[in-house]
Amino acid sequence: MLLSMKSPIDFYFDFSSPYSHIANEWLDALAARHGRSVRRHALLLGATFQAAELKSPVSHPIKREYSMHDFARSARFEGVVCRIPAVFPQPTQNAARVFWWLSETRGEPAAAAWAQAGLRAVFVHNVALNDAAALRNLATEHGLSADEAEAVWNDPVWKARLKDENDAAIAAGIFGAPTFVVDGEPFWGNDRKPQIERWLASGPF
Amino acid sequence: MLLSMKSPIDFYFDFSSPYSHIANEWLDALAARHGRSVRRHALLLGATFQAAELKSPVSHPIKREYSMHDFARSARFEGVVCRIPAVFPQPTQNAARVFWWLSETRGEPAAAAWAQAGLRAVFVHNVALNDAAALRNLATEHGLSADEAEAVWNDPVWKARLKDENDAAIAAGIFGAPTFVVDGEPFWGNDRKPQIERWLASGPF
Repeated sequence: MLLSMKSPIDFYFDFSSPYSHIANEWLDALAARHGRSVRRHALLLGATFQAAELKSPVSHPIKREYSMHDFARSARFEGVVCRIPAVFPQPTQNAARVFWWLSETRGEPAAAAWAQAGLRAVFVHNVALNDAAALRNLATEHGLSADEAEAVWNDPVWKARLKDENDAAIAAGIFGAPTFVVDGEPFWGNDRKPQIERWLASGPF
Repeated sequence: MLLSMKSPIDFYFDFSSPYSHIANEWLDALAARHGRSVRRHALLLGATFQAAELKSPVSHPIKREYSMHDFARSARFEGVVCRIPAVFPQPTQNAARVFWWLSETRGEPAAAAWAQAGLRAVFVHNVALNDAAALRNLATEHGLSADEAEAVWNDPVWKARLKDENDAAIAAGIFGAPTFVVDGEPFWGNDRKPQIERWLASGPF
């Protein structure tokens, strides 16, 4: 089957989600092994959590301690560096607006590169993306104009686009991140990797 | 290394938890491949959810639909029959009290057999364990005296034992089911099977 005949894997993530970071590191290679491309969607977990009446796992007593331990162990299991930053969870709407701006104006590969840069900034380099100076600096390191990036995240157009994308994700049944949609089938969580692999290798089960 | 030198795998489950049922079907074989035994702990998710300020996944809008789909898919992934019963979630304190009575008076293998019988009753045969007649019937089919079983689940001694076990689980950091504890390391969820397998095969990672 030609690559172009297979639908892309839709990948919904939040820049502040450690399991999204881990999955983002293995997803492209897995997709490529099965002749698929990846279409990324930056979203705000704050919005999906509200719609599904959920909270972050680290907002729950007892579960918080387990989750902090599991983030690190799950990263080691995949051979990925993942260190929880000082500001965690952190607001990520500015980075997400820049993502959608890149997606719209420069295409999916540019948006995917920004997704990786932002997730690694948070989970490898302890960057707080809600800090304007830090996000401007990340944009510059990434070869963007810091002024242009800041104009984007303050622009009602890109604010509205992110809100529309969140609404569309919620309407599509997305309540958490990472979520993968393969051939219309939703898989929630970095830990659904084995099921996704089986689906890609041999179809619905 | 002798079998007796390796610590058992502690397995915390609720009779009303589909992921516990799925895991219960693969756990003994996995443990045996690595020279481990299994020590089961019946608990009430209602108690651990309250301690961790959580609710059942099916109590959340949007997440509910995904979860119902994922229960079935995750069961197929493991080759396990798992059908959500008409009464779901269902109160399981009576079945859990019988579990601890068997554990105390007849030993772990008798309790493990009851765990399997109860989970299969719920998730294969559509039994409501909170229905006294249905639970008496299950006890009889299982070779127990229905009258003795009913006396157990109404006995303050076994009510207190279950409460103590719930309190101990919560104190040990258990907030959901299934949870596995291997060499002191907690793994939450049927989907942690690959991590548990790696731990058993090659130790901490």
